[in-house]
Amino acid sequence: MADQITKRSVNYSQWYNDLVVKSDLAEQSSVRGCMVIKPYGYAIWEKMQRILDDMFKETGVQNAYFPLFIPKSFFSKEAEHVAGFAKECAVVTHHRLMNDPDGKGVVVDPSAKLEEELIVRPTSETIIWSTYKNWITSWRDLPILCNQWANVVRWEMRTRLFLRTAEFLWQEGHTAHATSEEALAEAERMVHVYADFARNYMALPVIVGHKSPNERFAGALDTLTIEAMMQDGKALQAGTSHFLGQNFAKSFDVQFTDKEGKQQYVWATSWGVSTRLMGALVMAHGDDNGLVLPPALAPIQVVMVPIFKTQEERTAILEKMAEIKKVLEALGHSVKIDDRDNLRPGFKFAEWELKGVPVRLAMGPRDLQNGTVEVHRRDTLEKNTMSLEGIEQAVHALLDDIQKGIYNKAFQFRTDNVEKCDSWDEFKEKIQTGKFLLCHWDGTAETEQKIKDETKATIRCIPVDSFVCEEEGKDIYSGKPSHQRVVFAISY
Amino acid sequence: MADQITKRSVNYSQWYNDLVVKSDLAEQSSVRGCMVIKPYGYAIWEKMQRILDDMFKETGVQNAYFPLFIPKSFFSKEAEHVAGFAKECAVVTHHRLMNDPDGKGVVVDPSAKLEEELIVRPTSETIIWSTYKNWITSWRDLPILCNQWANVVRWEMRTRLFLRTAEFLWQEGHTAHATSEEALAEAERMVHVYADFARNYMALPVIVGHKSPNERFAGALDTLTIEAMMQDGKALQAGTSHFLGQNFAKSFDVQFTDKEGKQQYVWATSWGVSTRLMGALVMAHGDDNGLVLPPALAPIQVVMVPIFKTQEERTAILEKMAEIKKVLEALGHSVKIDDRDNLRPGFKFAEWELKGVPVRLAMGPRDLQNGTVEVHRRDTLEKNTMSLEGIEQAVHALLDDIQKGIYNKAFQFRTDNVEKCDSWDEFKEKIQTGKFLLCHWDGTAETEQKIKDETKATIRCIPVDSFVCEEEGKDIYSGKPSHQRVVFAISY
Repeated sequence: MADQITKRSVNYSQWYNDLVVKSDLAEQSSVRGCMVIKPYGYAIWEKMQRILDDMFKETGVQNAYFPLFIPKSFFSKEAEHVAGFAKECAVVTHHRLMNDPDGKGVVVDPSAKLEEELIVRPTSETIIWSTYKNWITSWRDLPILCNQWANVVRWEMRTRLFLRTAEFLWQEGHTAHATSEEALAEAERMVHVYADFARNYMALPVIVGHKSPNERFAGALDTLTIEAMMQDGKALQAGTSHFLGQNFAKSFDVQFTDKEGKQQYVWATSWGVSTRLMGALVMAHGDDNGLVLPPALAPIQVVMVPIFKTQEERTAILEKMAEIKKVLEALGHSVKIDDRDNLRPGFKFAEWELKGVPVRLAMGPRDLQNGTVEVHRRDTLEKNTMSLEGIEQAVHALLDDIQKGIYNKAFQFRTDNVEKCDSWDEFKEKIQTGKFLLCHWDGTAETEQKIKDETKATIRCIPVDSFVCEEEGKDIYSGKPSHQRVVFAISY
Repeated sequence: MADQITKRSVNYSQWYNDLVVKSDLAEQSSVRGCMVIKPYGYAIWEKMQRILDDMFKETGVQNAYFPLFIPKSFFSKEAEHVAGFAKECAVVTHHRLMNDPDGKGVVVDPSAKLEEELIVRPTSETIIWSTYKNWITSWRDLPILCNQWANVVRWEMRTRLFLRTAEFLWQEGHTAHATSEEALAEAERMVHVYADFARNYMALPVIVGHKSPNERFAGALDTLTIEAMMQDGKALQAGTSHFLGQNFAKSFDVQFTDKEGKQQYVWATSWGVSTRLMGALVMAHGDDNGLVLPPALAPIQVVMVPIFKTQEERTAILEKMAEIKKVLEALGHSVKIDDRDNLRPGFKFAEWELKGVPVRLAMGPRDLQNGTVEVHRRDTLEKNTMSLEGIEQAVHALLDDIQKGIYNKAFQFRTDNVEKCDSWDEFKEKIQTGKFLLCHWDGTAETEQKIKDETKATIRCIPVDSFVCEEEGKDIYSGKPSHQRVVFAISY
C-alpha cells in the first residue's frame, strides 16, 4: 500500500497529494478547484469542528448564519477589502435556466439577469457588518460575539487539496465591541484559542505572532497568526485573527450610543480557521507509510486485526477483541475491529498505517493462548508484545504518549530548523534549505518586499511567544536599525 | 412584548412572521430571499443537527462534503430532475470582478466568463452520483451511506422566513445499494428516523406516508414524507426520503460487478430535512405570547428571574439561584439566570415567554424566607408556588411533563381536525376550514390535479401509519373505485 505513495525525499509535493488521496481524505471533484471531502477526511474535520466550537463557546461566542451571497456593491464599501477579495470570486449573474431552443440540454435564460450581481462570499465581513447595523444602537447591545461555520469561495488559479481550493469550509468569527481595547483583547484571545487547539489537539508547535503590514488581512489594522512548520521546512499559516479597528463600522455606518450618550463607531475583529488545517495535519506528521494522526483527532484511535486459520480461532479471537473494545470505548476511545474476511492481515496492517490509526492490536491463536497481544504504534512504527492483563489501561496510556510523542517530534524538528541569522549571504542560502530564520528587520514594507522578490521568503510573523526576539540590531537586508527579530520563511 | 405580536386569530401569517423576528430566530437579509439565522434561532438548529446527526450515525451513515457548484451539463443528464430543479437557480457565469473603468466601484470582468456555467446546488444528486461513479466498482463497495450538512439555493419567487427561502440549510443523505430491496429499506428507515425525531424531539405528531406520483421528488420512483399539521389546519411537509431506483446510476453510468460477476446499475436513495423544520416548530406550538419550545430543543430550558429591592436581597436570591442552577445543570439542563439590572421583572417575564423558554422560576425576598419559588410553565402559562426543597427534581420532572404536554396538545389538535369525508360538497367546504380530510382516491394523477385546481388541496400522503386507510370505496371526486383513503389538505 505504502508503495503507492511517492516518498517524501523524492517529491514532497507529490507525497502530500498521494497521502490525501490514497488515505481517503479527499479528492478532486469534477468542478475546477473544488474538492470532495470523503467520509474519513470529514470525520477528522468534524472532530476539529466540535473541539473548536466548544472552545469558542467557552469564551462566550454564539453561532449564527449569514447569507452565502453578497451584493456586489457591498464590496466597494471598504477600499482595501475590495482590492484583497472581490477580484477572484464566483459571480452569480442569472437566476434561471431554460430549455435550449436547439433542443439539447439547458441554457441560461437571458431574461433572468439579476439587477445587481451577487458574489459567492469569499469572507463575510461586508454582509455581516451590514446586518450588525440593525442589531446595534446602544452600548448595551455590545459586545456581539458571533461565529459561523460555512463554505466560502475564492477563485484560486492553482489549487491543492485542502491547502488551496476554490471552495473550502471554515469558521469565521465576527465580533463587535465598544472600545478598541476590548476588540484588541478579543483578537488576541482568539489567536490563543487557535494556538491551544493546534498545540494540544493537532500536535502542531505553532508560533503565534503579528503579521507585518504587507501580510495583513485586507481591511485589518492588525493580523495575528499561528504559523506551523511543515516537514520540508516551509511555513503554513494555520489560522488568523484580525483587529479591524472601525473600518467596517465606518463603511457600513454602524454606530452606538455610549454610556455618556455620545455616538461612536463600533470596533471589530474577525478570525478564522479552515479545512486548510487538514492539510497542515497531513503535512506536519505524515511519513512515507501514510498519515500519522494525533489520537485526539483520529476518527479511529485503535484498530484490531485478528490473525487466524480456522473458524474456531477466528471466533475466539474476535470474542476477546470485542471485550477489549468495550472497555476501551468506556474509556472514551474509538475502536474498530477489522474482521473483513477477504483480506490478509498484512494488507490490513498497511491500510491502517496508511490511514494513520495511532494504535494497532494484532492477535493470533498463540497470543490468545499466551494471554498476549501485539501492540503497534503508528508514530514510531514500534511493535511490542504485551500482556492482555490490563491491556486497556496500557493502550489508554499509550494513546496519551503518542499524542505527546507526535508533538515533541514536531517540536524537535522545528527547534532544529529555526536559526538566528545575521548575514544576508547566509540568509539567501539557508532560506532555500527549509529553515525558519530569525532575522532583524527595519520595519519597512520596502525591505520586506525586496527580500521577497529576491528569495520568495516572507515575514511569517513578529512572534509574541515561542521566541524571545526583542533586541537591538541591524536589518539583515538594509542594515538599518532594528528593534527585534522576526520570522522569515518560504511559505505555502 | 406580546403586544408587538399580531394575534393568530387576526392574521396567522403575520403572527408567524412576528414570532420569528421578535423572538430573535431570524430576519430578512439584504439579499433577496436569503435570511440571517440569529444566534437564538441557530442554537435551536444546532440542537436539531446534533440529535439528527447522532440518529443518522446510529444507522451507519457517515458525513462527507461535496462541491457547492454543479456544472450545468450535469442537470441535463436526468430528464425529470432538470425539469424539477434546474430552472430557478443561481447561475455563476464569471469568476472575476474588476475596477469599473468609470472609476466607481467594481464590475464583472467580461474576460472572466466561465466556459461552462456553474449552478449553485439546489440539491446534490447529480454531483454526488458523478462522484460515486469513481467510488463503486464491486458489490464490496456497497452500500455507501453518505450524508452532508450544507447550504442549498432554490430561487423561490415568494419567500418566507424558514418556510421558503432562496438559500436554506439542510442535510441531504445519498445512499447507494446493490439491490432494489436494500434501497427501499433504506428510504423507509430514514423516513422513520425523521418521524421519530419529529415526534420525540419536536413534539410534532407527524403522519408518515407515500407521496402520490404528482408530488414526488423530481427523479424519484417513490417519495416518503412526514406531514405535520399547523395550527391553521394547513399541512407542512417536514421531511422526505426518496427511492430513486436506478435513475441516477443510469444517468451517470454507475455500475458494479455483483457477486455473480455481472454488471449492474446501482440503486439509490436520497433524504433530507432543512431549516424548514424551524418554521414547523414555531407554527405548530407557538401562541399569542410567543414561541412555545419543546424542552428537548430549547436552547434555554429554565430561566430564573430574581425579584428584589435591596442589594442584600439581590445577593441572597442570586446565591440561591446559582445553587439551583448548578444542580439543574448536573441533571443535564441548560439554565440561565437573568440578572440584568436595567430591566423590570415583568419585562423579563414577557421576553422569556416570547422566546418560549419552557420553565421560569421567579424568586423574591419572601420566597427566600419561606423556602419557596414561583414556577411558571410556558406551555400552559400556569403558575405554582413550590417548595425549594427538591425543586431541581421537580423542575426536571416538569420539563419532561411539558415535552409530553406539547406533543399531546398538538396530537389532540390534529385528532380534532382530521376527518373522513365521502362527499365532494362537504370536501370543498371543509378543506377551506383547515381540516385534513381522509378521502378515497382513484389513484390517477388526473383526478388529483382536478381536485387541486378546484380547491388548492393536494394529496399530502398515502399514510403508512397514524391512520388505517385501507378499505374499498369510491373516489370522492370521480366516483371511480378506490382501495384506500389518502390525506388531502391545503399545504404550505
